[in-house]
Amino acid sequence: MTESSLDVVGIGNAIVDIIARCDEPFLSNQGMEKGFMQLINAGQADRIYDAMGPATEQSGGSVANTCAGIASLGGKSAFIGRVAGDQFGKVFAHDIRSIGVGFDTAPSDRGLPTARCLVLVTPDGERTMNTFLGASTEFAEDDIDEALIGSAQVTYLEGYLFDKDPAKAAFHASAKAARANGRKVALSLSDAFCVDRHRDDFLALVRDGVDILFANETEITSLYQLNSFEEAASAVRAEAEVAVLTRSEEGSVILSGNETVEVPADPVGQVVDATGAGDLYAAGFLYGLTRGRDLETCGRLGSLAAAEIISHIGARPEASLETLARGRGLLD
Amino acid sequence: MTESSLDVVGIGNAIVDIIARCDEPFLSNQGMEKGFMQLINAGQADRIYDAMGPATEQSGGSVANTCAGIASLGGKSAFIGRVAGDQFGKVFAHDIRSIGVGFDTAPSDRGLPTARCLVLVTPDGERTMNTFLGASTEFAEDDIDEALIGSAQVTYLEGYLFDKDPAKAAFHASAKAARANGRKVALSLSDAFCVDRHRDDFLALVRDGVDILFANETEITSLYQLNSFEEAASAVRAEAEVAVLTRSEEGSVILSGNETVEVPADPVGQVVDATGAGDLYAAGFLYGLTRGRDLETCGRLGSLAAAEIISHIGARPEASLETLARGRGLLD
Repeated sequence: MTESSLDVVGIGNAIVDIIARCDEPFLSNQGMEKGFMQLINAGQADRIYDAMGPATEQSGGSVANTCAGIASLGGKSAFIGRVAGDQFGKVFAHDIRSIGVGFDTAPSDRGLPTARCLVLVTPDGERTMNTFLGASTEFAEDDIDEALIGSAQVTYLEGYLFDKDPAKAAFHASAKAARANGRKVALSLSDAFCVDRHRDDFLALVRDGVDILFANETEITSLYQLNSFEEAASAVRAEAEVAVLTRSEEGSVILSGNETVEVPADPVGQVVDATGAGDLYAAGFLYGLTRGRDLETCGRLGSLAAAEIISHIGARPEASLETLARGRGLLD
Repeated sequence: MTESSLDVVGIGNAIVDIIARCDEPFLSNQGMEKGFMQLINAGQADRIYDAMGPATEQSGGSVANTCAGIASLGGKSAFIGRVAGDQFGKVFAHDIRSIGVGFDTAPSDRGLPTARCLVLVTPDGERTMNTFLGASTEFAEDDIDEALIGSAQVTYLEGYLFDKDPAKAAFHASAKAARANGRKVALSLSDAFCVDRHRDDFLALVRDGVDILFANETEITSLYQLNSFEEAASAVRAEAEVAVLTRSEEGSVILSGNETVEVPADPVGQVVDATGAGDLYAAGFLYGLTRGRDLETCGRLGSLAAAEIISHIGARPEASLETLARGRGLLD
């Protein structure tokens, strides 16, 4: 195993978020499940967009947000994901590179436009997402850069990518390349409905190729089809080297062997937009891990990054997370 | 003169703003004049964008922002401006229509993309703008909808559009159509450098076709090439039926015949982003005018709308201006 030049390489959907505020009835009128992500086709994307209010565009993508968070913490990260050669593709590439994340996946020259996610934010700050995958559906094993994966301490995989078979194959190849170089593999379950659609594949990946698993309460209970958080926690403890379970305002629980670490959420004045809370928690946690911190400090870094992101619109950090973390004594 | 079905029709550049924060040295390193707008070509746009930090995209355009403000106040407005058939063109059309502004200019099917403005916001909230006009350069007399203009109480023209000759011709035709229907014509000088580039044309339009002129301090002194605000105010008083002069945190001065009305700025906790302050002031003022309010109330509505816009990132209202204005007793 050679010296690692990167802290984290992330693999996920390359998405531009189109964010608008809405009231609760809008979600039910549109048949959306509050707080979840649904996949939509081009026609649905147009219809929902027409019905939405004025919006703001900002680069997103779950694991891409995590990579941006790691850069904001002062770490070295790179992202692998597919965009088209259109305006949104340029926006995505600009935003992730300009925060210091390496991004060299060649834009697709085929027909589908860059992926976009129509994000509806209700007055309570909760986000409901509608994703048109576009160019991301073309993501496949060819896009994987094995040398890049081999050079990173952690390869972080986005569960959402499991919605397409070629991407699923790319995930297994990535996990294999990471392990062949003695690196760690992390996975986010992303969304309870996504877990429900691909439960067996997720379980196989958790059992065979994942060292660090991130999930929230609904995702982990969906994975094991168990009714309580406690039962699901017991199940995952037996299978993952490290399981990181996030519980919104109740903080997070980290399980590793016989160890259980509970970490409180950071207080925030007002939750403006919950988009990216889990993504940024993962950024803090993984960055702590690559710096050799104990699990509790990793969790505290996660809570700090999540609190910054939910205090404003959008899922990319506006303040320097490195400065915030130093101020709290969580980084030297 | 038939009953008017619209309060205001605005004619201007249809632009998507790409907004990023920067420090003061960034502006000088890039050779930008703080607080002003410069026109850039495609190559410059790419170079500046590459140098900028992570950004947020939001629909903009000076007079388009005003039209959005009028809709937010509860008024009826429409916008005329040219976009391309690309992703930013769709974003622009969506945002302005979804706030309730009529927008029916057909997208251009030629080569140039939708106009974009690279907006750099310094820590003091000041904005410095770099505009690639793109599809807006194709705006011409053909795009003018004379029936629409004839149906609006006020036709509001954006000075920035004067940077291209075909648009200038379209302006004169619009002013003529408005007057032929007994309507009012309003003009924003937009920017002191823009005034400097087209001084004679602006003066001719102010003398012959404009009823209400909007300008800030640097713009009005640039127009008359006078050193002091007071001298410039005297000069414009003799030429415009109503001149509305804005002075940032010092509020505004409204001149009409022998009348002089001074209106204070509304206090704001912190200026987050000054983008759109003048545009939204104009929205409040013009909406008051179409409702038959006196000049002072018009100015107070302007101050209220400007204060809302500078308290957040972006130049489109986030709160309902109608609700805010009712709460202050400025609208019934």
